[in-house]
Amino acid sequence: MYAPPIHRLITELGKLPGVGARTAQRLALHILRASPQDAAALAESIREVKERIGLCEVCFNFADGPRCRICADERRDAGVICVVEEAGDVIPVERTHEFQGRYHVLGGALSPIDGVDPDDLKIAELYRRVSDPGEPVREVVLATNSTTTGEATALHIADTLRERSPDVVVTRLASGLPVGGDLEYADEVTLGKAFAGRRRL
Amino acid sequence: MYAPPIHRLITELGKLPGVGARTAQRLALHILRASPQDAAALAESIREVKERIGLCEVCFNFADGPRCRICADERRDAGVICVVEEAGDVIPVERTHEFQGRYHVLGGALSPIDGVDPDDLKIAELYRRVSDPGEPVREVVLATNSTTTGEATALHIADTLRERSPDVVVTRLASGLPVGGDLEYADEVTLGKAFAGRRRL
Repeated sequence: MYAPPIHRLITELGKLPGVGARTAQRLALHILRASPQDAAALAESIREVKERIGLCEVCFNFADGPRCRICADERRDAGVICVVEEAGDVIPVERTHEFQGRYHVLGGALSPIDGVDPDDLKIAELYRRVSDPGEPVREVVLATNSTTTGEATALHIADTLRERSPDVVVTRLASGLPVGGDLEYADEVTLGKAFAGRRRL
Repeated sequence: MYAPPIHRLITELGKLPGVGARTAQRLALHILRASPQDAAALAESIREVKERIGLCEVCFNFADGPRCRICADERRDAGVICVVEEAGDVIPVERTHEFQGRYHVLGGALSPIDGVDPDDLKIAELYRRVSDPGEPVREVVLATNSTTTGEATALHIADTLRERSPDVVVTRLASGLPVGGDLEYADEVTLGKAFAGRRRL
């Protein structure tokens, strides 16, 4: 029904997450109607991001040089490392403005069912960073997702660190009711964790 | 917070319709994680569509040559022209498989408030097609949107055609309840049109 170039564009757009057939068509029609400059800017930005963005050699976050902007920032506290699953998880933590340390991106979570072993993640690299005498680490904050695989990954790393680097404090993000969350609508697991983690006021 | 190439990609993606800041970020992270081949294919399809797709010299639909596939198809009835606002409107009509004629894409709808006059649309080109003795037109189906501007455009063209080409039948798509539509939830204008257009069974 469509000319081949339009069909190809719809197919490629449809591979994006959350973009179904209808949305891909709508986006393609928009691009067809857009100015040549705008379309070229979009295509160029895709190319550029793949060409210029790699992984930080220290923490495996996205970086436009050998090191990411956080690892290159001398003002960030190298003594605290926040461990996240994906590079995309760095931004939500940064947005809280609560964390002044550095990051370590694992590249996923342990999942024996899916065949994801510690060797598939940047876990050995984390241990190396923590035990590096040149980069004295005081605390490792495990900020993997609050899912089965995220919890398993956090426990695995915590166990190993306790053994290998007993002086380093290992912490985990708190689980509990989301802010603004209604008790009535909370699932029992979340509510249970909120109880277990209750704090004296 | 993001490296400049990532920031540029998010900005460009955010210009797409229905793509807000969050979605643009999610799409950008997906592209960052995607294989270089997939990202290159997307960028290339955007470039290609702008390079190779133009407008049909007859009906102003999208075309990958001088004429669109429908105008180039000898089996399509040149005696019936379906007039639509945008090239994107051709596909929904094609999907009905109800229409075997050709199209004419106006490139918008008349809207004096927005400064869109008949000269800004391909209306003169439509009159020329209809009065062309080499392409004998029997019927013009006005399939502009069922909106104020779409209705105004249909009425304007109908008036002019009645005067200039009195032998040509001018029709308008029916207005009424959408199939599967509940009377209870129909707005009164749609319901009024459904009444006015009621048919003997």
